[in-house]
Amino acid sequence: MRVTVSPDLSETRVVRKERTRRSILDATLELCEDSSLVALSLRQVAKQVGIVPTAFYRHFESIESLGLALVDESFVSLRAMLRDVRRHDPTYRDIVDQSVDTLVSHVQKERQHFNFIVRERAAGPLTVRAAIRHQIELCERELATDLARLPGTDVWTPEDLQVLSTLIVTAMVATVEDILVAAGRPDAEQVVAERARTQLRMVIIGALQWRSQ
Amino acid sequence: MRVTVSPDLSETRVVRKERTRRSILDATLELCEDSSLVALSLRQVAKQVGIVPTAFYRHFESIESLGLALVDESFVSLRAMLRDVRRHDPTYRDIVDQSVDTLVSHVQKERQHFNFIVRERAAGPLTVRAAIRHQIELCERELATDLARLPGTDVWTPEDLQVLSTLIVTAMVATVEDILVAAGRPDAEQVVAERARTQLRMVIIGALQWRSQ
Repeated sequence: MRVTVSPDLSETRVVRKERTRRSILDATLELCEDSSLVALSLRQVAKQVGIVPTAFYRHFESIESLGLALVDESFVSLRAMLRDVRRHDPTYRDIVDQSVDTLVSHVQKERQHFNFIVRERAAGPLTVRAAIRHQIELCERELATDLARLPGTDVWTPEDLQVLSTLIVTAMVATVEDILVAAGRPDAEQVVAERARTQLRMVIIGALQWRSQ
Repeated sequence: MRVTVSPDLSETRVVRKERTRRSILDATLELCEDSSLVALSLRQVAKQVGIVPTAFYRHFESIESLGLALVDESFVSLRAMLRDVRRHDPTYRDIVDQSVDTLVSHVQKERQHFNFIVRERAAGPLTVRAAIRHQIELCERELATDLARLPGTDVWTPEDLQVLSTLIVTAMVATVEDILVAAGRPDAEQVVAERARTQLRMVIIGALQWRSQ
């Protein structure tokens, strides 16, 4: 005997489950604004969403796995966008300008996510810190791969390409932090973006003069 | 009528007061290892030190002002040491190598302080975050002043010197974070130090090719 589920009913359940999951993620971002994941209880999150604490487990195993989901959300689309900029194969200068624009506007749009990332990177649970470090390393590796395709880097060792991409990503992480500090002051945000562009141009010019030993 | 205090007795009191102050600072660093200043109560600190909570106020106005004292301690000697390295007027390469050595060995020696700085920079009370940002800005300005004295930078605008020194300090902040993550694994610490040296050399070589517009 087979039980058939009406597709409509099933879809509704899926949609509803997804909506609750989203509410849990959003409530966590909000609760973390004044605090941190380490200080957050499952009970607080459930209360904010309006579900019973046991219902939380239908969506996440723990506060930590909820944190890991937020880390994934924050990085996946950003990494894809930055790879896209580099794949359009423009000049170094275009890559720098467009990468900074992409980063800054994405952070402005997803302010809560990146406030979360900046704080949890330094003060979050160890697994969440490790996940953020891993995502930043992925950014570095993807950048190193793309740099290896650019003219002028053929004389570089893979190690030096990695050092260069680490430096660039470090400058971009600092840019994210500064954009968040400048939050909502367009003048200050522009200063940060302009400084990021100049920094990356200096780094790239340095890189083109560099010869691996 | 004048009350004369025996110098010996007075000195003892000063010494004792200083010792309690030190105990409060050390207890805070320890308590913050698993937590953060925002989650710390004056009562917890007093208990750890073994003083009554009201005695705390003889030394600090609040948990925040205690945090500010720790920020000062962490930076003042580091900034002096880094300025010293640059004042000995060696080659660019020596400046890079010795600055990285100084930074790495200082952070290794003052691990608790720098764990505190890295965490509170992102997740601390707003006044403490601002104080850390201010200290990092002082590092940048002092570096910019010293860079202006080096041969080859005379064609630079003050703005570009500032951008360069921000980039160098950003790379050094990231080095501090990585040294703390590598804590106690000498191989990993060496990789971090070597990467920092290569990064700074790349930046300096780039800088020497740079012409302000």
